[in-house]
Amino acid sequence: MLTISQRAEMMPMSPIRKLAPLAEQAKDRGIKVYHLNIGQPDLPTPKEGLEALKHITRTTLEYSPSEGFFSYRKKLTHYYNKYNISLSPEDIIITTGGSEAVLFAFMTCLNPGDEIIMPEPGYANYKSFAIAAGAKIKTIATTIEEGFALPKVEEFEKLINQQTKAIMICNPNNPTGYLYTRREMNQIRDLVSKYNLYLFSDEVYREFIYTGSPYISAFHLDGIEQNVILIDSVSKRYSECGIRIGALITKNEKVREAVMKFCQARLSPPLLGQIVAEASMDAGPEYNMACYEDYVERRKCLIDGLNRIPGVYSPIPMGAFYTVAKLPVDDAEKFCAWCLTDFEYEGETIMLAPAAGFYVTPQAGHDEVRIAYVLKNADLNRALLILRKALECYNPKK
Amino acid sequence: MLTISQRAEMMPMSPIRKLAPLAEQAKDRGIKVYHLNIGQPDLPTPKEGLEALKHITRTTLEYSPSEGFFSYRKKLTHYYNKYNISLSPEDIIITTGGSEAVLFAFMTCLNPGDEIIMPEPGYANYKSFAIAAGAKIKTIATTIEEGFALPKVEEFEKLINQQTKAIMICNPNNPTGYLYTRREMNQIRDLVSKYNLYLFSDEVYREFIYTGSPYISAFHLDGIEQNVILIDSVSKRYSECGIRIGALITKNEKVREAVMKFCQARLSPPLLGQIVAEASMDAGPEYNMACYEDYVERRKCLIDGLNRIPGVYSPIPMGAFYTVAKLPVDDAEKFCAWCLTDFEYEGETIMLAPAAGFYVTPQAGHDEVRIAYVLKNADLNRALLILRKALECYNPKK
Repeated sequence: MLTISQRAEMMPMSPIRKLAPLAEQAKDRGIKVYHLNIGQPDLPTPKEGLEALKHITRTTLEYSPSEGFFSYRKKLTHYYNKYNISLSPEDIIITTGGSEAVLFAFMTCLNPGDEIIMPEPGYANYKSFAIAAGAKIKTIATTIEEGFALPKVEEFEKLINQQTKAIMICNPNNPTGYLYTRREMNQIRDLVSKYNLYLFSDEVYREFIYTGSPYISAFHLDGIEQNVILIDSVSKRYSECGIRIGALITKNEKVREAVMKFCQARLSPPLLGQIVAEASMDAGPEYNMACYEDYVERRKCLIDGLNRIPGVYSPIPMGAFYTVAKLPVDDAEKFCAWCLTDFEYEGETIMLAPAAGFYVTPQAGHDEVRIAYVLKNADLNRALLILRKALECYNPKK
Repeated sequence: MLTISQRAEMMPMSPIRKLAPLAEQAKDRGIKVYHLNIGQPDLPTPKEGLEALKHITRTTLEYSPSEGFFSYRKKLTHYYNKYNISLSPEDIIITTGGSEAVLFAFMTCLNPGDEIIMPEPGYANYKSFAIAAGAKIKTIATTIEEGFALPKVEEFEKLINQQTKAIMICNPNNPTGYLYTRREMNQIRDLVSKYNLYLFSDEVYREFIYTGSPYISAFHLDGIEQNVILIDSVSKRYSECGIRIGALITKNEKVREAVMKFCQARLSPPLLGQIVAEASMDAGPEYNMACYEDYVERRKCLIDGLNRIPGVYSPIPMGAFYTVAKLPVDDAEKFCAWCLTDFEYEGETIMLAPAAGFYVTPQAGHDEVRIAYVLKNADLNRALLILRKALECYNPKK
């Protein structure tokens, strides 16, 4: 019989994209939809990156090396140096987005049945890649009430058993915007070291930290250099989500050699994306500063606005460009769908990502949504007004 | 302990790329290397595709839909129509190269332990993707002596058991250049139908068929429409290996829905590649005709030349741009490495792909190599001379 594999059955629909067909239908009805569901910044790509496309002189768009262009990997070492991360080009493998880096890390380091400890809520697609590798995610609960801070180390240790092979973090965090403290990172380091685990650290939002607290990379932690696998991407840094250029970075040579076999099987990362990413690094500090200032303003606009809506609560995210907010609804997924199917305010509506998809524990986050602040302030303010009106209409008796 | 996963240990090095470090070292010594190892055509990408890059007006390189742009998928239906394959845009999912299409097909349709029947020699990376999915490849032997024709249907049936879930073919074939006959395709159809198997059909070389025999797509086979999953790519068709744009095509809605979960997890296929691929379809028939004529000439040049070298034998490939040739050596892999490490002729040498990597059966193809005829005739002739000299030097007593 023609059956679908168990892993495919288990794979979740993306909580970010699953309501997309409803949004398309709303647009077909002539309704304008504000997309707060997806981390697709509206900020411009560096002009250096866009210009590079216009100056391509090659006449054949050929394969690039499976590990990515040497010149690009070399240039990346200078970038990481600025963050006090010392790398050689050999430590860096270019991937098709950060997504492929996560997939390859899991496929390389984890056997079916192996377990990864991960704080929840967490980036939803980690779950998908774990299922693809047959690995299991065990979650450490963090809560909106405690601002998504990590629980005590004992909570981690309760989960550690023979099958535990790795801890995965995203720092600054998607979806919560949480930034791990020095104390928390040391706690993770000690666990990784004590149990000799892999530490998968997704740090694609390092440009976007809004507090005075320092960014502690997994590579800043002493004594676990062989355990760390860093996931990176230019998608957010340069507003280049579409070019699909990420990186898997590790000083563990055995891991790199194994990852390279997966890289060779898929032949090469995107050629054009690498050209754009490499050229984008020539953008001056004013590019990142302008983006940063935009996000600071948007964050203020969104969080202030959310907390002024009756029944809505959002902590203040310290990094990235998301927040997880609690809504006064029984089921945020139903509400998000309803906004697209049954609601409009002056011909407009909003699309939010139900937060339940970012949790592994059933029922957790059922009244929460993830909101990306990737729109201009005027649009954010409009979206906030629509959210307020939608909640009034959805909860008429409250 | 930090261990590498079993699947990563099992993953083979690419037979096409594993000798690459030796080639780099040869180049560092100032030796020119003729690359016959890789299907990287030197033919130009359509100018329509290159021009499209220069006219990108978007200022943010944003995500594209997980399934690829509708406009591109729609345009592809017209392309397939020309080959008497009737599709709707919904049947087509754009992937990151044909590679990702194979991976997603395996991940979606096969459980760990499931078996795929595949003729050998076959494209080496199918093995890698099968390992990634935990599936097993069972091979049907085809031999150089019989021109790589398929054996009788009884040989297939001997391999079919409860775990058999699919047959995979590549047509025209990489690495052999073999084109499946109407009779063979009907035989495959009957097996697929009788045992209700998936038929994964990689048809990326359909533009390159050099005999009067017709191209029989898996989609031309009646009664198994729900079983067929077509793998496609623009890499070879438009000499655009680097843009990483392929497609997974099936009329099986349940499969498509499951594949889409993998697509959503990796967010989107390359944006820039899709722009180039879509524009490349505006190239007139003269583009494909010119490429085709080049390959016809190169094929003649290579095959005639190979068969004139004492002890070398190559059948005449009917399609694609590869041939598998038998060399008068004990171990083709050693010979290929030796050509890069210990041999040069007037400061030049050749890089070939040992064919053993295209076989699953140990020892099979140990004296064969895959040669890609992707170089100009002058370069091919030079490479043939170098091969002759290398064999004379390697086998001094023969």
